[in-house]
Amino acid sequence: MDMSRNIKLVLEYDGTNYHGWQAQAGTGRPTVQESLESAIKGVSGNDATTYASGRTDAGVHALGLVVNFHAPGAMPPAAWMPALNHVLPPDIRVIRSEEVTEEFHARYSAQGKTYTYRILNRRAPSALYRNYAWHVNVRLKLRPMRQAAASLIGKHDFSSFRGSGCGARSPIRTLRRVEIGKRGEFVELVMEADAFLQYMVRNIAGTLVEVGLGRFDPEDVAAILAARDRTRAGRTAPSHGLYLVAVHYNGE
Amino acid sequence: MDMSRNIKLVLEYDGTNYHGWQAQAGTGRPTVQESLESAIKGVSGNDATTYASGRTDAGVHALGLVVNFHAPGAMPPAAWMPALNHVLPPDIRVIRSEEVTEEFHARYSAQGKTYTYRILNRRAPSALYRNYAWHVNVRLKLRPMRQAAASLIGKHDFSSFRGSGCGARSPIRTLRRVEIGKRGEFVELVMEADAFLQYMVRNIAGTLVEVGLGRFDPEDVAAILAARDRTRAGRTAPSHGLYLVAVHYNGE
Repeated sequence: MDMSRNIKLVLEYDGTNYHGWQAQAGTGRPTVQESLESAIKGVSGNDATTYASGRTDAGVHALGLVVNFHAPGAMPPAAWMPALNHVLPPDIRVIRSEEVTEEFHARYSAQGKTYTYRILNRRAPSALYRNYAWHVNVRLKLRPMRQAAASLIGKHDFSSFRGSGCGARSPIRTLRRVEIGKRGEFVELVMEADAFLQYMVRNIAGTLVEVGLGRFDPEDVAAILAARDRTRAGRTAPSHGLYLVAVHYNGE
Repeated sequence: MDMSRNIKLVLEYDGTNYHGWQAQAGTGRPTVQESLESAIKGVSGNDATTYASGRTDAGVHALGLVVNFHAPGAMPPAAWMPALNHVLPPDIRVIRSEEVTEEFHARYSAQGKTYTYRILNRRAPSALYRNYAWHVNVRLKLRPMRQAAASLIGKHDFSSFRGSGCGARSPIRTLRRVEIGKRGEFVELVMEADAFLQYMVRNIAGTLVEVGLGRFDPEDVAAILAARDRTRAGRTAPSHGLYLVAVHYNGE
């Protein structure tokens, strides 16, 4: 009889000092997964394998990465949050812990994800946001960016925006929304899709920035998408502007 | 004949790793002033004394601290910004440099200052804002906070909100505005005054938080102000939520 509970955690982390989510044997660089699994062992005395909604790359931040793991023992589900925060490094926080049904899997149960890409759009560089936004020092034109973004919405083959190391079987994804907003000196791109290919958000962000700088026309972006050729799109936007905001599940 | 130019710099910095603005011989902890003066020497080969609009305490951030110094040599005023940024550590940035008249003094010419105090008001702690906002995990009631804040506006003896080490001759200050706004999960207090006493913003923020938690009534704050007694006010809010936003000069 399996007495373990399936625990769902929501994590916020500052990706600056991590080589992304996924544990990588022998690289010598810390990962969020290793820190979390070591914290679970510290709290419970047991080894546990954690399953995340997906990877994040080195330097990428998370406001709501979802993880599940099977926890032996009697710890009340809500107590995992303070217990893990007590032993985790301060740049990783559990912001929710709860019990979920046995079938729940952070990755396979996910119905969609939302990312925000944050750009500091002003002439001067920033001390406070050096690790938290991409500094673009020429004024971006948002109207053509929004026009270009509209042509990406829907179910498409996103090969033109896919990293070369991407292991996904299919390049077809459904981009549900792309919103481009201005908040003070920041331009924020919000993207939601059923799932994302490797570097897809950063490649779209880099391409939309080219549009905002006038180097691409809005119509070029539809042609880039149709070409299914990575060499046609803009550069990959740097990782430190990217935030995994939320993972969506049925009924949420 | 003095060929030097009076250069005004506007600085943004992340105060996390600094023992505040002011150079302190022999403490072994870095200060922003020492980093800046060393950068000026690195750029120009000359020693320079910098005059700041005022000190900031350890851990306090700046979006617009103003500094002036007398620069010998032919460097065009606007070139100081990129030149200093080339040698400064990345958590200190010059965001503007310009020549000002000989009479300009960053401290004595200042007509006022604006600070923001940032509170993360949610149950869960934060990884990303661990050094950039005060985490208050009980919901703050903003209406009584605003009522209390209104009683502080104007020209008053602020002894009740003054740090014990404050060296100012007079405790009289004119608080021009206190605004309390909600931005997502953040509560932000914006305060503008002709000048501030030591810890004044943090003591007011700490006291207004007590009001927001229901521990003080709004009317208590007027009584605390009238008492001119530091022991009556609330705790000093932590330094890492505080931002010096701007220093105001004539004609700005």
